[in-house]
Amino acid sequence: MLKEAIYHRPKNNYAYAYDKETLHIMLRTKKGDLASAWLIHGDPFDWKENAWQKNELEMALSGSDSLFDYWSVELRPPYRRLRYGFKLKDTNGEEVIFTEKGYFEEAPIDTNDYFSFPFLNGIDVFHAPEWVKDTVWYQIFPERFANGNKENDPEGTLEWGSASPSPTNFFGGDFEGVIENLDYLAKLGITGIYFTPIFKAHSNHKYDTTDYMEIDPQFGDKDTFKRLVNECHDRGIRVMLDAVFNHSGYYFKPFQDVLENEEESPYKDWFHLKEFPIQTEPAPNYDTFAFVPSMPKLNTENREVKEYLLQVGKYWIEEFDIDGWRLDVANEIDHQFWREFRSAVKSVKPDVYILGEIWHDSMPWLQGDQFDAVMNYPFTKASLDFFAHQIIDSKTFVNNLNALLHSYPKNVNEVAFNLLGSHDTPRILTMAEEDVDKVKLLFLFQLSFTGTPCIYYGDEIAVTGGADPGCRKCMIWDEENQDIELFSFVKRLIDLRKNEPAFGNNGELHFLYAEDRKLVYEKKLDNESLLFIINNSEHDESIDFPYELQNKKVLNLLSG
Amino acid sequence: MLKEAIYHRPKNNYAYAYDKETLHIMLRTKKGDLASAWLIHGDPFDWKENAWQKNELEMALSGSDSLFDYWSVELRPPYRRLRYGFKLKDTNGEEVIFTEKGYFEEAPIDTNDYFSFPFLNGIDVFHAPEWVKDTVWYQIFPERFANGNKENDPEGTLEWGSASPSPTNFFGGDFEGVIENLDYLAKLGITGIYFTPIFKAHSNHKYDTTDYMEIDPQFGDKDTFKRLVNECHDRGIRVMLDAVFNHSGYYFKPFQDVLENEEESPYKDWFHLKEFPIQTEPAPNYDTFAFVPSMPKLNTENREVKEYLLQVGKYWIEEFDIDGWRLDVANEIDHQFWREFRSAVKSVKPDVYILGEIWHDSMPWLQGDQFDAVMNYPFTKASLDFFAHQIIDSKTFVNNLNALLHSYPKNVNEVAFNLLGSHDTPRILTMAEEDVDKVKLLFLFQLSFTGTPCIYYGDEIAVTGGADPGCRKCMIWDEENQDIELFSFVKRLIDLRKNEPAFGNNGELHFLYAEDRKLVYEKKLDNESLLFIINNSEHDESIDFPYELQNKKVLNLLSG
Repeated sequence: MLKEAIYHRPKNNYAYAYDKETLHIMLRTKKGDLASAWLIHGDPFDWKENAWQKNELEMALSGSDSLFDYWSVELRPPYRRLRYGFKLKDTNGEEVIFTEKGYFEEAPIDTNDYFSFPFLNGIDVFHAPEWVKDTVWYQIFPERFANGNKENDPEGTLEWGSASPSPTNFFGGDFEGVIENLDYLAKLGITGIYFTPIFKAHSNHKYDTTDYMEIDPQFGDKDTFKRLVNECHDRGIRVMLDAVFNHSGYYFKPFQDVLENEEESPYKDWFHLKEFPIQTEPAPNYDTFAFVPSMPKLNTENREVKEYLLQVGKYWIEEFDIDGWRLDVANEIDHQFWREFRSAVKSVKPDVYILGEIWHDSMPWLQGDQFDAVMNYPFTKASLDFFAHQIIDSKTFVNNLNALLHSYPKNVNEVAFNLLGSHDTPRILTMAEEDVDKVKLLFLFQLSFTGTPCIYYGDEIAVTGGADPGCRKCMIWDEENQDIELFSFVKRLIDLRKNEPAFGNNGELHFLYAEDRKLVYEKKLDNESLLFIINNSEHDESIDFPYELQNKKVLNLLSG
Repeated sequence: MLKEAIYHRPKNNYAYAYDKETLHIMLRTKKGDLASAWLIHGDPFDWKENAWQKNELEMALSGSDSLFDYWSVELRPPYRRLRYGFKLKDTNGEEVIFTEKGYFEEAPIDTNDYFSFPFLNGIDVFHAPEWVKDTVWYQIFPERFANGNKENDPEGTLEWGSASPSPTNFFGGDFEGVIENLDYLAKLGITGIYFTPIFKAHSNHKYDTTDYMEIDPQFGDKDTFKRLVNECHDRGIRVMLDAVFNHSGYYFKPFQDVLENEEESPYKDWFHLKEFPIQTEPAPNYDTFAFVPSMPKLNTENREVKEYLLQVGKYWIEEFDIDGWRLDVANEIDHQFWREFRSAVKSVKPDVYILGEIWHDSMPWLQGDQFDAVMNYPFTKASLDFFAHQIIDSKTFVNNLNALLHSYPKNVNEVAFNLLGSHDTPRILTMAEEDVDKVKLLFLFQLSFTGTPCIYYGDEIAVTGGADPGCRKCMIWDEENQDIELFSFVKRLIDLRKNEPAFGNNGELHFLYAEDRKLVYEKKLDNESLLFIINNSEHDESIDFPYELQNKKVLNLLSG
């Protein structure tokens, strides 16, 4: 047995509360090393005749990646307390006990030698809003979705779709445009819209906020926004806004005040200023987002800044009934701020969704006290590498996804924000070298995977576009230029996700087969199994079907 | 290279802020596998001519345990942001790059492939009070330290030391007794007293609190306690109290109220009651500490309970100026409560010390948002196994300590509460089979080890005692029955810790030699090294001295 490969540490993804009664325990071992694993467990205080009362529970091999096997088990400790260890048997028959204190031949007598999950306190359980795991998101970059009101167009607005997107041009997209096309979105079947920033700002992308309490006039006014939210809600569509709290824009009043009044400004502690006079060139002498002088980093440790931003967080919920906040550059802001943010926004709407923009491993933000989810870019990368770029085979793809799935608790995975592209990445069709079939497989995989999928506006009708700003093209509304068949395919998948209980997050995902570019996985619920059989190659393939079909009723869901 | 052994995950002990400018990065590899390791690092946004600007920094082998080597490095990222990976070279010359996305032959180009420490926010840095790392604690079980006032003796009080301690007998120890003996403690040199509970309660140990706002009358009144704190402070001695917030005592008024009024009680949500009528026999139908019916678990998720306990936390600081709280059964209370507790008590006294009673791996409570330290029982176990029980050799001892030291950040280790025994464990002299020499080695090791040592009352004069209640004997005040030589030895160690800068937490600890029962370690500061040469066997030993002494001045600190 390769002891060096064995890993377990309580809390995080290795031991966590799935709900107020249920613990999940996971163990990592070298791939192929073990024949079986058992959890040795008991209540720490349950002693009879000087012997700790322990039980054994067999663990299941829940997945493998390139180096490791992951063994998992679920249990409901009657008194919500647990001491536990592992009994491991390798393929040579060697058996060892593994506990917090190391390796033993026999299960230790002292309960202090074991791992501890001291108490399952309900308030600490990671708990995202119930509605999220059944949501299909649609991301809108408001300047580019639809221009419904010419009167609010900014100066120099170009005709819709008449030019390639540049870092500075404007096409006049607005809220009226979204409202006019909500029936299109309802027809597609999406149930949530994530809007990139809508607050007053100078740029076309609005990530350089000037006023967090005002709508940018090019999009409409607060009445229009209220109408937009109501129209969405009438169609069962939730609304999520983008909160850019890491930094403000250059023209944010407090920053203008420090530029004008320097040390005398009452806002001098709102930013991370290093010296006076403040300079922006050749390099800013204050902290910024990246090295962008026009995006000064906000001092979120400052009480006034915190109160202002928490007020912003609450205001748009209280006044406009929005359903979620997507947090820009979320991992560069302090944890303390996010804890207070969660507490503030959940106090006004307990089931509001909090989504952090983090491109990396995000466990520290997903412990239940900060975010409900992060933008699942590791999912994006794995999916694009396999389906679009075709630079990994299906074995590697499964390894990467198993590593990802096992790096978070199950309740975290169920609400992960699974995107294939965004305003920050090239469009999927372009990455797939304009092969719509690859895009179809991407959508099929995304919409059936654990988590909550998000479609980037236009991807469903085959809009193309390279890296930012190329990926921010105007939405195509002329049906002749839309790929209607792709739209129907995506709509069909969304319907399946809604109507087939096992398709979405209630179905348990298992990879069954992965060879070359062929992949079979299962979503299982009760007695029903949905099988996804994917040929991600250019030519026909046949496989030995990895599933017993005798005495089973088979239905092709996709073709009907 | 054994890839399965390699482990790194940002935050926790593997990547953390040591202070507001400094990051520590650590990597785990198979023992003996690597020849060297480098950190590849850079600011995520520092690009020149389409190339990420990265640097390399060699890592040091900071320690090993039975299976693993630990490689560590410290750095100060100029913009407080870090992307990083590792370049590893094994003893066969094989070189690989390890990042968040796995193993590579060449350093990846995409910064998203690397590990991320997104931003060093000051407010998130683990920061215990400065004074703690220079403190030598002394634990007093008040009923058994000294009886200074016969008038407050409880009914049936026995004559001091006239009987063995039982779960229920009383000897009349009180605050006056402590005050009378503060000069003794000052002479010993301790600088902090941790008192087990002093609030109103029925038992002799007072862990069954009846009123958190009142002193137990057998110890004195609030005036006496105030005088005690002042007298301690006058001698440079801090005072820490014991907060039993996991459960109350049976006679706590709110619990009595629910017993009396059942469902009608306004306190029914203060506990975890499962049904009415409430029963205590044959088994309680409410949650308890362990299975003890007289210790009902408090519902710390309840707003009223929380406010009451936070009020308690603040009251004893505000009114009596105490310096620390030791939190009983700390890991069974919710994290959310402890975050609010930290915020509440630090708001009234920023440098108050928060010490949790946790016997297990405690990283989830030591992230900077909850506790300053935990009771370091893994240190206790390793030390006793080596010095007292002699069931492990010095190699295993060093392995166990290195595993422990590398399981926490350095700033956490520096304030760890290193105890050799407590009111919950047999006394060290008894565990050492009454061999005072072993106890001397235990004290030498404890007082020179990283962290903040605590002496259990009486251990310094060779008091004996088995498991609870045996370890709660009356303090011996008759000098004829005290081991004065042991006292002098401990006092000498405390003096050294105070007066030799490298002896305490400013000295960097390195294990230099471990064979059989022989151990050499170094505490190093600037150009000075303190060498600790320990022979933990029954007979004389000689060793090849693992240190270059040429051209160095040598002084025997212990003998003078």
